[in-house]
Amino acid sequence: MTKENISAYFQQLQDAICQAVATADGQQSFHEDLWQHHSGGGGRSRVLQNGRVIEKGGVNFSAVQGQTSDALMKQMNLTERADYFATGVSIVMHPQSPMVPIIHMNVRYFEMSNGKFWFGGGIDLTPHYVVEEDARWFHQQLKTACDRHDTAYYPKFKTWADDYFYIPHRQETRGIGGIFFDYLSATTLPEKEQLFAFVQSVGESFAPIYTHFMLKNSELPFDDSHKDWQLVRRGRYAEFNLAWDRGTKFGLETGGRTESILMSLPPLARWEYNYQPTHDSLEAQTLGLLKKGIDWLR
Amino acid sequence: MTKENISAYFQQLQDAICQAVATADGQQSFHEDLWQHHSGGGGRSRVLQNGRVIEKGGVNFSAVQGQTSDALMKQMNLTERADYFATGVSIVMHPQSPMVPIIHMNVRYFEMSNGKFWFGGGIDLTPHYVVEEDARWFHQQLKTACDRHDTAYYPKFKTWADDYFYIPHRQETRGIGGIFFDYLSATTLPEKEQLFAFVQSVGESFAPIYTHFMLKNSELPFDDSHKDWQLVRRGRYAEFNLAWDRGTKFGLETGGRTESILMSLPPLARWEYNYQPTHDSLEAQTLGLLKKGIDWLR
Repeated sequence: MTKENISAYFQQLQDAICQAVATADGQQSFHEDLWQHHSGGGGRSRVLQNGRVIEKGGVNFSAVQGQTSDALMKQMNLTERADYFATGVSIVMHPQSPMVPIIHMNVRYFEMSNGKFWFGGGIDLTPHYVVEEDARWFHQQLKTACDRHDTAYYPKFKTWADDYFYIPHRQETRGIGGIFFDYLSATTLPEKEQLFAFVQSVGESFAPIYTHFMLKNSELPFDDSHKDWQLVRRGRYAEFNLAWDRGTKFGLETGGRTESILMSLPPLARWEYNYQPTHDSLEAQTLGLLKKGIDWLR
Repeated sequence: MTKENISAYFQQLQDAICQAVATADGQQSFHEDLWQHHSGGGGRSRVLQNGRVIEKGGVNFSAVQGQTSDALMKQMNLTERADYFATGVSIVMHPQSPMVPIIHMNVRYFEMSNGKFWFGGGIDLTPHYVVEEDARWFHQQLKTACDRHDTAYYPKFKTWADDYFYIPHRQETRGIGGIFFDYLSATTLPEKEQLFAFVQSVGESFAPIYTHFMLKNSELPFDDSHKDWQLVRRGRYAEFNLAWDRGTKFGLETGGRTESILMSLPPLARWEYNYQPTHDSLEAQTLGLLKKGIDWLR
């Protein structure tokens, strides 16, 4: 299993996800931009805008290489300077309807010329309105994907997601979490193949999960007050991505392709000073559920 | 001249600026929130929303104290742990009209229990559309305020602003710059008084400068395409503040009052994937002027 195999798989995954999302959207398709990385390799960014269900969604593939910079070594806690190769698929979807959740998915593989390698990734869901039944279904899908490989994965990676997708200055989680994992490495080829199989399961869980919400929730009624709240929640999403997300920060600081990195930002977002939802409203109930450590499967 | 004198002056400055801006707005006044800092002191945040000219503007005063944390020592390049006192006024104004520029001003004073102290601050302007005559007038006001104290100030602090108010991942300045200064310290009382007098001149230049633009530009006609561009420029403003501004970062990481810090974020902002203004449009001309090192006074 070479880095080329893994990269080729990620390209196929991008194709399959774009096709599934565009079909569920039914109105717009993805626009593709090819780009080159300054130190080698490049990417294939795909964005769908102004669809029936998706207002702005990106499904990006990249496979880049270069020499580890100081910034990269610091970010990755590396001690040896070597050539690196990094490939992955990154997704963020901002739907039109406040009743459809925002979703994020990433799967990635990193390899050094000294032979070290690791997988990372995750999926997390940010409903504008948290519906416990939807949250349970979402976490159940992730648990099922994890359990096929190792029953220790879901509890461990669910906790990791709670810690990662957290907005400290708001003392809020970004959404209802999901799974997050990084630095998954192995010492034998069979172990490496198992890790890759797990990452494939995560990647392949995306389309069934998100098209489920696209189809189920996009026809639900909503009014201006729901749209307003969606803009506020998108503001929080932008706060997390710009101020706290290590992946975004790393990309912007190391000269990644800005438009591909910032496709994650919402099409429109709102910041009102000291916005407080009405006591006991659906909005206040959602805020009450944006906490670490909730067991959605209980 | 004690820290109490300086802090009292900053409170009066806040009062005077709020009065001038509310008068020029003519429709809304400032809403005040008083808050306490976890380790001592507190602040007086004032926000005006949905005015005739100002869509969202904050004029915040604070005077806080505590023991220097590790984060503070790192941010300030301090080597000795001591008690600190920090006071200042921070302003950001987002106007309704895309023809009125966004403005930011900050004046601050920092003092350590070991006797070290310094002043910092700055003013910078972010027109949605750069008009060279307005830019020249703005920089001339700042130069005049600086020259009254030291003719070396304007060139030095103008360059510092170009470097500080810069969005590396866009290779754009935030706007047309202005002045930025920090760590202005002194060894004698007369020198300290001169620095304070300079900071007062900067603070007192704000109201005449901004009410000039409020009154002159708020009646200019604009259409939906100008509003759209305003939302895009506001997105860039949010990118700078959340991803790069050291003051914002420091405040969020050290447990400052989130709503006061993030009053700087725009009321509404837009991110379209790979947005490109039409060749030779006013929007493209503005982008061409968002560069470091432009001598607006030439």
